[in-house]
Amino acid sequence: MISSPALLTDRYELTMVDAAIQSGTAHRECMFEAFARRLPNGRRYGIVAGTGRLIELIGAFRFEDPELDWLRDNGVVRQPTLDWLADYRFSGSIWGYQEGEAYFPGSPLMTVESSFAEGVVLETLILSVLNYDTSVASAAARMVSVSLGRPIAEMGSRRANEKSAIAAARAAYIAGFSATSNLEAGRTWGIPTMGTAAHSFTLLHDTEEDAFRAQVAAFGLDTTLLIDTYDIRNGVELAVKVAGPGLGAVRIDSGDLPTVVEAVREQLDSLGAVGTKITVTSDLDEYTIGALSGAPVDAYGVGTSVVTGSGAPAAGMVYKLVAHKGDGEEWIPVAKTSAQKMSVGGRKTAVRRLDSTRTAREEIIYVGDGPEGEPEGSPDSSRERRLMIPLIRDGVADERYLGREGTVRARQHRASVMQELPVEAFRLGHGEPVIPTVYR
Amino acid sequence: MISSPALLTDRYELTMVDAAIQSGTAHRECMFEAFARRLPNGRRYGIVAGTGRLIELIGAFRFEDPELDWLRDNGVVRQPTLDWLADYRFSGSIWGYQEGEAYFPGSPLMTVESSFAEGVVLETLILSVLNYDTSVASAAARMVSVSLGRPIAEMGSRRANEKSAIAAARAAYIAGFSATSNLEAGRTWGIPTMGTAAHSFTLLHDTEEDAFRAQVAAFGLDTTLLIDTYDIRNGVELAVKVAGPGLGAVRIDSGDLPTVVEAVREQLDSLGAVGTKITVTSDLDEYTIGALSGAPVDAYGVGTSVVTGSGAPAAGMVYKLVAHKGDGEEWIPVAKTSAQKMSVGGRKTAVRRLDSTRTAREEIIYVGDGPEGEPEGSPDSSRERRLMIPLIRDGVADERYLGREGTVRARQHRASVMQELPVEAFRLGHGEPVIPTVYR
Repeated sequence: MISSPALLTDRYELTMVDAAIQSGTAHRECMFEAFARRLPNGRRYGIVAGTGRLIELIGAFRFEDPELDWLRDNGVVRQPTLDWLADYRFSGSIWGYQEGEAYFPGSPLMTVESSFAEGVVLETLILSVLNYDTSVASAAARMVSVSLGRPIAEMGSRRANEKSAIAAARAAYIAGFSATSNLEAGRTWGIPTMGTAAHSFTLLHDTEEDAFRAQVAAFGLDTTLLIDTYDIRNGVELAVKVAGPGLGAVRIDSGDLPTVVEAVREQLDSLGAVGTKITVTSDLDEYTIGALSGAPVDAYGVGTSVVTGSGAPAAGMVYKLVAHKGDGEEWIPVAKTSAQKMSVGGRKTAVRRLDSTRTAREEIIYVGDGPEGEPEGSPDSSRERRLMIPLIRDGVADERYLGREGTVRARQHRASVMQELPVEAFRLGHGEPVIPTVYR
Repeated sequence: MISSPALLTDRYELTMVDAAIQSGTAHRECMFEAFARRLPNGRRYGIVAGTGRLIELIGAFRFEDPELDWLRDNGVVRQPTLDWLADYRFSGSIWGYQEGEAYFPGSPLMTVESSFAEGVVLETLILSVLNYDTSVASAAARMVSVSLGRPIAEMGSRRANEKSAIAAARAAYIAGFSATSNLEAGRTWGIPTMGTAAHSFTLLHDTEEDAFRAQVAAFGLDTTLLIDTYDIRNGVELAVKVAGPGLGAVRIDSGDLPTVVEAVREQLDSLGAVGTKITVTSDLDEYTIGALSGAPVDAYGVGTSVVTGSGAPAAGMVYKLVAHKGDGEEWIPVAKTSAQKMSVGGRKTAVRRLDSTRTAREEIIYVGDGPEGEPEGSPDSSRERRLMIPLIRDGVADERYLGREGTVRARQHRASVMQELPVEAFRLGHGEPVIPTVYR
């Protein structure tokens, strides 16, 4: 078990600190920015996730004796750097898009203002958390928008690294999923958990009927019976025979779903089980959920596709030094200028311009202002929504965005943001970002 | 921080135990099997990874008071189940493909023999670890095979969940990568770590020359200078000016690599830096590495593509009940029979048939024998290599496959297995598995 996140870090961050301490530049006041050059996979918008748990991890980012000993024994950095790391507490400030916010190419998702050394050592941690969680939330939001209000449960833990699974459950919940199969996500983040039985439970018993009886005896009539172990038609008949027409739900995990779901609904109704719900869980993604929009499905369970970002398992975010103060007091914008991977230097503030119907029209990024400064052009507050909020000020985190409360807040924010996106945002086909990013 | 892996579990596993305790079937002796119905993404072979760290996690799988309290407070299971979970220690046996082994569709990668209850609660943990690590190793092995012996470093931590990153570094190392950027992977698994500086280090300094001087002062002439922050040609000239012709290496992270690498090599040679190596790190995957096979590259760094399984971020493994003993002593094969997701019931043993040149020709799966039984047809030991080894016997793990020693052993095993695959295995194009799977 890992006790500190401090070594969830690429070696070059510590060697840069080591060299910068020696060259006298480690203390320079810097502005780092996390952003994505493009949206994943031809998407129309992305959803920021990971912010809350990242801020908690930054608070826990400390180099204790086991980390310092290992760095010393392996010659990663020298003594002055070890001394500096031993005292490490992030004392700078971080602004960013609120968790659950929509984002677009170039959106300054997170801005870190601190000394070079304090900010550079967080690079990998910030990107790991934002890239993975945002990838999941961005995919999940599309599934939610095509589900037409039917609940979707996240059940992909088995198709993700065991610890990623917890983060995935949280990101999907923020994006509008209703529950998760993952118990640790329930314990850590308060996300509702669900699940009753797998095919192995049916196979374990001497007959399917024995299995159904055992499950109903344990959990009552309101349980969900998995009816496709042997033959779906027989399974449905048996389920209603065992539980009666008051059976809570049946789950279908295979077959040509639109056809099968229709047939199961008819069969349930003909048996008087008109209130029995149908849950489907067979390798679903946003496209197959969309294809079921006309079918009498009551709930979905989604696994692999949501925890792997549905074709875009990393959101492509980068973390760049965009300005520093040299040895003076003025910000000096800096940017890489060689081919392909250009970036825009300078401090940035972002607002979303809305039209008279409060529909988003532009992502406006003001370059050169600090996040606390007044953007140029006097934004009309009714027509320009500020996107960056303070997450950490002088080392102190805003508690409202952390823990279970922060997770619920992010979920609510995502729901409200979806209201302001143009309807074209919800088209499933690949295309351009639904609003343009404009630099001012 | 999570203290126990016990809740890295889908809720339905515990509800199944709960119902099976009540129905009197929880104690039935069972055989579960982890396998993949197909290889990821049109690949010719896959590489098993995760086994060693999974066996360690199974050893740590305990329900302590915090887990039991949470399960009780949330009504997940009832008191008899809580009592059973409180005493949980896996006491069964696990056989499986050695970590680093090649696998094919249907290969019985892991077989768990235990009571139903003991085996079913491990379902999610087993699949999470095997699916992710195998996905990374299977992608990494292809990159290694096209790298023509040049070292490849894994540097994708920032494009994976922060904890996945450690597992990814380990899986890539098993698949033949030479090092990782991830410090925790160095500490936990003993994998060599690497890295010197990012563009931010150059941008922090007043000039590129100041940055290079600072780095050389800190790490000596043998360091790797990143030369593409502003202009590659100027960068190379400056690097040799600062470090002299004895400079260790330059790193290129952008541009049309085959052309750029050629030009940089010529420029270095013309400056007398004939021993200075060239490392490239710009969004590489197996295809772009292949395209650089004729270029004077000395080393690669790979990020996103390896930690996300290069298009196949989950290996598609499933965990199925394949046999149980009912209330008797005889194994009863069981299998789901409904559409699409059929599986083959019964205990299985696997061997790989080799021809006279010791090239693999068939994956033979004997159905009905236990892993310890003698496969039918008296395998000729020189022509049939047994693939399943005991990993845990009656709850006791074989230490040789765990920890750093196990990781090195897996890496060596992978290297030897690659020798026996037909050369067609190493073609990059999508295609069929390079050898067929045969059930006997």
